Amino acid sequence: MLKQTFEMTLSPRFSETDGMGHISNTVIPIWFEAARDPIFEIFVPSMKMADWNLILAGFNVTFSAPSFYGKSVTIITNISRIGSASFEVYQRCMQDGKLTAEGRTTMVHYDYENESSMKLSEEIKERLNDYHE
Amino acid sequence: MLKQTFEMTLSPRFSETDGMGHISNTVIPIWFEAARDPIFEIFVPSMKMADWNLILAGFNVTFSAPSFYGKSVTIITNISRIGSASFEVYQRCMQDGKLTAEGRTTMVHYDYENESSMKLSEEIKERLNDYHE
Amino acid sequence: MLKQTFEMTLSPRFSETDGMGHISNTVIPIWFEAARDPIFEIFVPSMKMADWNLILAGFNVTFSAPSFYGKSVTIITNISRIGSASFEVYQRCMQDGKLTAEGRTTMVHYDYENESSMKLSEEIKERLNDYHE
Amino acid sequence: MLKQTFEMTLSPRFSETDGMGHISNTVIPIWFEAARDPIFEIFVPSMKMADWNLILAGFNVTFSAPSFYGKSVTIITNISRIGSASFEVYQRCMQDGKLTAEGRTTMVHYDYENESSMKLSEEIKERLNDYHE
Repeated sequence: MLKQTFEMTLSPRFSETDGMGHISNTVIPIWFEAARDPIFEIFVPSMKMADWNLILAGFNVTFSAPSFYGKSVTIITNISRIGSASFEVYQRCMQDGKLTAEGRTTMVHYDYENESSMKLSEEIKERLNDYHE
Repeated sequence: MLKQTFEMTLSPRFSETDGMGHISNTVIPIWFEAARDPIFEIFVPSMKMADWNLILAGFNVTFSAPSFYGKSVTIITNISRIGSASFEVYQRCMQDGKLTAEGRTTMVHYDYENESSMKLSEEIKERLNDYHE
Repeated sequence: MLKQTFEMTLSPRFSETDGMGHISNTVIPIWFEAARDPIFEIFVPSMKMADWNLILAGFNVTFSAPSFYGKSVTIITNISRIGSASFEVYQRCMQDGKLTAEGRTTMVHYDYENESSMKLSEEIKERLNDYHE
Repeated sequence: MLKQTFEMTLSPRFSETDGMGHISNTVIPIWFEAARDPIFEIFVPSMKMADWNLILAGFNVTFSAPSFYGKSVTIITNISRIGSASFEVYQRCMQDGKLTAEGRTTMVHYDYENESSMKLSEEIKERLNDYHE
């Protein structure tokens, strides 16, 4: 079966550049979080803060080229690991057909009230699996 | 003649919310700057920093309702005043068909090398005039 | 009687610069909000989101010079108007002893539960008045 | 010999919180970059963009607890690896005496004009070594 990807296209903002003339390194985690919206929607269909059930354990980003203002950027999002209560998201930032940054984010299914992790349901695992790279 | 508007649709980012549960007030000027991209393109067709010839003199923003994460936002941009070397941009932030914020920004046509304002050419005035409210 | 001012000193961040080589115009409202912390403390001594009772009606910013990375900035905050349920904050951004931006922000004493403005108490008016320019 | 650390204390900004009521995960890399200023100063004593000679290869962040608005935060910065042309920075984010996040950032000594890495001088290695954990 052909695997799917989530794709988000955005226009880099002037305010996201820094004095080096390209997009600040600190902006990539912001774009990556924005591009995880469809994953949030799987977990929190209402998209309401009160229903939130995901917590971020950590992320890494590796830069291979600067990103620039004035040309659109595409963020490609996949699932790279599905655990029992957590999963890993693999994201690539592309501009002009070139990889500029990539990163992996570990998210935990989380019960904020009881402050504990929760198992991923089979239904959610299946939906994540559609995007497994 | 029917006047035109610039319209930009965006998805509010989770990172743009604040502890009050809605979009931080500090984000609206960032969206408004992003939505002025087509105006920048009139002045700087290359969109290159080295060719930049606009400077911001000031802006104001008035809030009429909170903006929320989870629903798209449209920024509507018009020109509200065309002077000899400067112009004013009028922008509205809409969500769910409702006005949430509006603002006016004064931009000056500017020569960064000589640190002085420059007259708007007739051609640029005409192009801005297409978006005059 | 000598009037007081709130003063906050900060180090501009590399990520706050933009491609023009100086601090992005969009950052000044962020610094101004941060420098209103002591005013928030007058209204919300707990500094807890759940107790928040202020809402922002609008603000304006006027730029007189760029701000730069690498040198500290001081934000000077005063109260410029005290109304019955609202007040105006006047803020100046200084770098190297020079004014780089100034702005006025209108805040409303607000009951988030009932979605209505609330009168300023005499005690709060007096405390604000100490910072009246 | 006792090793030194760089320490930066900051007040979290209201605009840095997100809808979950605490500091957005996307803010930690911004704080960490700000806290690397004294390292930038070792490499670029002028702190001028035109003299910049560092490039970021990547970073990771691990979260152990949320950070909150209303209480100061201290970022502790050390050098965790010194290579021939690159080095790794280890940073901890502390609030209320508790670790809330930690991260490692790989920086490369870089010649922007020739787009190539440059060896670290012995003098710079020694200065970095003072902060080696």
